[in-house]
Amino acid sequence: MSITIRNNTPLRGIVPPMVTPLNSDGSLDVNSTKKLIEHLISGGVHGIFILGTTGEFSGLSYRTRKEMIINTCDIVAGRIPVLVGITDVSLEESVELADYSYKAGAYAVVVAPPFYMNIDQQEMYSYFNQLADSISLPMFLYNMPSHTKLTIELDTVVRLSSHQRIIGLKDSSAHAVYFQSLCHAFNDQEEFALMVGPEEMMAETVLMRGYGGVCGGANLFPQLYVALYEAAVNRDFDTIKELQAIVMEISKGIYQLGGYKSSYMKGLKTALSFMGLAQAQFAPPLYPFSALEVEELKKIYNQITAKLTILEVQQ
Amino acid sequence: MSITIRNNTPLRGIVPPMVTPLNSDGSLDVNSTKKLIEHLISGGVHGIFILGTTGEFSGLSYRTRKEMIINTCDIVAGRIPVLVGITDVSLEESVELADYSYKAGAYAVVVAPPFYMNIDQQEMYSYFNQLADSISLPMFLYNMPSHTKLTIELDTVVRLSSHQRIIGLKDSSAHAVYFQSLCHAFNDQEEFALMVGPEEMMAETVLMRGYGGVCGGANLFPQLYVALYEAAVNRDFDTIKELQAIVMEISKGIYQLGGYKSSYMKGLKTALSFMGLAQAQFAPPLYPFSALEVEELKKIYNQITAKLTILEVQQ
Amino acid sequence: MSITIRNNTPLRGIVPPMVTPLNSDGSLDVNSTKKLIEHLISGGVHGIFILGTTGEFSGLSYRTRKEMIINTCDIVAGRIPVLVGITDVSLEESVELADYSYKAGAYAVVVAPPFYMNIDQQEMYSYFNQLADSISLPMFLYNMPSHTKLTIELDTVVRLSSHQRIIGLKDSSAHAVYFQSLCHAFNDQEEFALMVGPEEMMAETVLMRGYGGVCGGANLFPQLYVALYEAAVNRDFDTIKELQAIVMEISKGIYQLGGYKSSYMKGLKTALSFMGLAQAQFAPPLYPFSALEVEELKKIYNQITAKLTILEVQQ
Amino acid sequence: MSITIRNNTPLRGIVPPMVTPLNSDGSLDVNSTKKLIEHLISGGVHGIFILGTTGEFSGLSYRTRKEMIINTCDIVAGRIPVLVGITDVSLEESVELADYSYKAGAYAVVVAPPFYMNIDQQEMYSYFNQLADSISLPMFLYNMPSHTKLTIELDTVVRLSSHQRIIGLKDSSAHAVYFQSLCHAFNDQEEFALMVGPEEMMAETVLMRGYGGVCGGANLFPQLYVALYEAAVNRDFDTIKELQAIVMEISKGIYQLGGYKSSYMKGLKTALSFMGLAQAQFAPPLYPFSALEVEELKKIYNQITAKLTILEVQQ
Repeated sequence: MSITIRNNTPLRGIVPPMVTPLNSDGSLDVNSTKKLIEHLISGGVHGIFILGTTGEFSGLSYRTRKEMIINTCDIVAGRIPVLVGITDVSLEESVELADYSYKAGAYAVVVAPPFYMNIDQQEMYSYFNQLADSISLPMFLYNMPSHTKLTIELDTVVRLSSHQRIIGLKDSSAHAVYFQSLCHAFNDQEEFALMVGPEEMMAETVLMRGYGGVCGGANLFPQLYVALYEAAVNRDFDTIKELQAIVMEISKGIYQLGGYKSSYMKGLKTALSFMGLAQAQFAPPLYPFSALEVEELKKIYNQITAKLTILEVQQ
Repeated sequence: MSITIRNNTPLRGIVPPMVTPLNSDGSLDVNSTKKLIEHLISGGVHGIFILGTTGEFSGLSYRTRKEMIINTCDIVAGRIPVLVGITDVSLEESVELADYSYKAGAYAVVVAPPFYMNIDQQEMYSYFNQLADSISLPMFLYNMPSHTKLTIELDTVVRLSSHQRIIGLKDSSAHAVYFQSLCHAFNDQEEFALMVGPEEMMAETVLMRGYGGVCGGANLFPQLYVALYEAAVNRDFDTIKELQAIVMEISKGIYQLGGYKSSYMKGLKTALSFMGLAQAQFAPPLYPFSALEVEELKKIYNQITAKLTILEVQQ
Repeated sequence: MSITIRNNTPLRGIVPPMVTPLNSDGSLDVNSTKKLIEHLISGGVHGIFILGTTGEFSGLSYRTRKEMIINTCDIVAGRIPVLVGITDVSLEESVELADYSYKAGAYAVVVAPPFYMNIDQQEMYSYFNQLADSISLPMFLYNMPSHTKLTIELDTVVRLSSHQRIIGLKDSSAHAVYFQSLCHAFNDQEEFALMVGPEEMMAETVLMRGYGGVCGGANLFPQLYVALYEAAVNRDFDTIKELQAIVMEISKGIYQLGGYKSSYMKGLKTALSFMGLAQAQFAPPLYPFSALEVEELKKIYNQITAKLTILEVQQ
Repeated sequence: MSITIRNNTPLRGIVPPMVTPLNSDGSLDVNSTKKLIEHLISGGVHGIFILGTTGEFSGLSYRTRKEMIINTCDIVAGRIPVLVGITDVSLEESVELADYSYKAGAYAVVVAPPFYMNIDQQEMYSYFNQLADSISLPMFLYNMPSHTKLTIELDTVVRLSSHQRIIGLKDSSAHAVYFQSLCHAFNDQEEFALMVGPEEMMAETVLMRGYGGVCGGANLFPQLYVALYEAAVNRDFDTIKELQAIVMEISKGIYQLGGYKSSYMKGLKTALSFMGLAQAQFAPPLYPFSALEVEELKKIYNQITAKLTILEVQQ
């Protein structure tokens, strides 16, 4: 079932960080998982990234993580690449998840730095290197300072890129200078994929040199983000302007409701529940919106879908 | 095997955050574990706290964590209370470790906030509450902002203290105002234990109202910290002055060598290797000192033990 | 008018960080300044520190800062030492304020690191050294990381202490390990004064080795903090317990009202207005409490003064 | 001498944050100031921003700041707009500098939040509002969280933009999502100028909707940044790619040498000294590079100028 992907054909496009549909008892909602995956594939996404921050990996048990891996790989069945987040604080557990992903037929793993111990860049380098040596799948680095409180500094990325199994980086820092520095450093190494996390900056990075985005909103509206990506690739500025405006409305309306630190996750998953693609069930420490907040979100969601209809973006 | 402890007899004294002795292949070094535990008990400590930050819990697999729990409980065999760190990012996994600890005969569990997702105090409150509802052992809160990047604010501690299973807090913030605020808030609730993490401030908190300390250096020299604790309880200022000076030399000489963010862990475990109580083996992302650094540490270690001999502190 | 103070008699005791009484037009309220200074001196304080953070130095024009310096020195008239905050982002302006303070008869100046540029310890060292070379008065270092976002690291303090004009440090970090490390490092240099900022930890530092505190609450109740300081010096634990409880009530009730980042300044100055010792007027960017908040503060203030009356602490 | 600028013609283009040329005694180097200004104007810049972070405003005395203002306005003599940084911790001093700038003929002032007191958004809003009410010139907000440790949040910017004197914002956060959120919020208010600080992201923001950049490197090579700006305006991707690569080499080679927190300032001003446009003299707390570092910088500088010569960019 494993997909053979040449290193010299780096990943490009929209790779949604898929949410993990859950039942009220915390177990995987397999039915929604199927529906959501079909929604994403029919929306034209270029890959799926499971068990990232948006996938609430940290709140899930290992059992549930494995169920998510095997179910996703089975449902996708090789149609698009599946990337699996194996970020952990224990290298041993990350390796175990990587092995499991390999056997399940995943395309690559994605790893942020171990996020409990305070470490320096040399320790981070050694860690990633040792991990890459211990697994069979290609590996993406995952820069996520807002959650790990650690930055994979440019020099460390460059050093790690010489490891044949490390094939790219997903940057969720939102730091435009950092991303431009990456683009400059890898100017002559097109095979090293540089994906960006925050969907609000996806278009501009693709215009400059980026490979695409790991856009949370693509769970909801995959075609919107795919169309924006293509507009950026084609330098179609009228379309960029039109679609970027909707992306920013999603960012403002759906990801910030209530002003919680967890508003992004709450807004995204609750909006998915409106589409019947997930229940509004979260892994602790996250909890659902109040009924009032759900109602408010519904209004915003309706306004956005109305605009998408006018733009003839399939939802 | 389980010890019955009345809620109205709170834990007091020196409860070392025990290091986890490891073999070079990352497995638990059971032999050293035995020796270290006997060293601690014969040094007079009032409890043992395993799988905390000093116990490198985050770098260990669940298998190794469980081996540490069962071995420690078996070796201690009820002689002193065993506290088990069950901090995790997944509530489900924490509950699993708590159940295992309960069956193994532990005295209590210790839990820091889930340290990946950015959450607010209400989410933290709900998390701890839900966790306390799901386990059978008494539970200590663990405030560790340098690692979790989250503070359990005073109001949250007060609210949580009404849960019958939450019996105290270990504060590793080193923030003297925070700790005094806790002491003031719990002035009328003597049964709620307030232990302090950084050994450099243990004596002063015990002088004021604190219950004791979770002193990393007590792995090396349990009698030193027990004697300092007793001096503070007895307000014996000559002894406090004498012993505090040694504690500060350990802090400066052993915990800061090399200037790494991980110098504390490296220094502590390497010094233990000089005593034959652990190998200088670490869980990733930590790695051993260089040979030169080990040599330098040895000199400092020898100076400190010479002073302890003069003071007639057993090592 | 200048007081001759031997370097070998370091400052000890309670040195309130005096608020700067202002009129509604932002000018110095000289009348309140007189009343407040007499209140402090009659309360037994061991010195006065003007133009610190509590003195709102940062919000004042240089003209007003100079008026505060000359008025304070004139009113105090040598009865107790006057310390002047000359913290600035421009070394040249700090030197100018130091010269002015010298001519006005101040005892010493107090300086935090320049707080705009991001600098390393070597730049900080050079800065303090150059400043100390350029002035005539003795100088205290002022560690205030919550506001300057810079820490004067232990090694930097030690290096700077060899400058004959640098005679001590005020630490407002609230970091107990940092303060204990200073105490240990200067164990053999009694002439280097180590004062602590947060009043909540004053007693415990004096018990250990500290020299006293720069307690904001001493603006309100100087006798309370002087009595607590003396109790700590005399190791009178019954009195410490009694007075520390009131100090913590002030901390909780007066400094946190409204939950603003500026609640400390608002609460302190508003409470002083109840005593007729200052108007509730602030330098921008701070603004007065609402009428409702003032009312609420008044209740808390009355409860505290009632307790002080019972304890026979003069207000 | 004052330039009348309509609010409905917002500032666009390259507005270098001009360094402040200093003599070795700390006074303004008027001769270099003249040369540098002519260099900038002949390089085609669209304005000059003096006394920003790059202008080392924080380290200068008020006397030197005023000399910089009057000299710059006199030399520029209305040829291009002069923006003056009046950021301070004292509103009163900022107003004084704004008055001085108005009389000198400046185009606008630029203000970051007061950077000592910890304040919330409401206090920040009131501060900016009160300041705007007290001055005669148009005013730019200056978001500079790396130095002020405060962010002007989107809602605060939106609220402040209704003040007729507040005409735009310079964002130096490097946070691409923040900048996109500003672009979205002001989509219908073209007269509100959104300039970006970090030159590494200037091109991509202009491609999306930005107005231009406050590029430090334009002190050295104004034509380079003007050409890149124009390429972005014209969506000339071949030129963007070519010039962006040089901009990134400047960023990497000149701004990071030595790995200091102040490397940017040191590198920029030292490179200017190679061109005879400033001395390598800094306001404290900054200090010159060592001779070895200067030599190393010279090599990098020569490589960059060689490339610019090949690209036929005037230096």
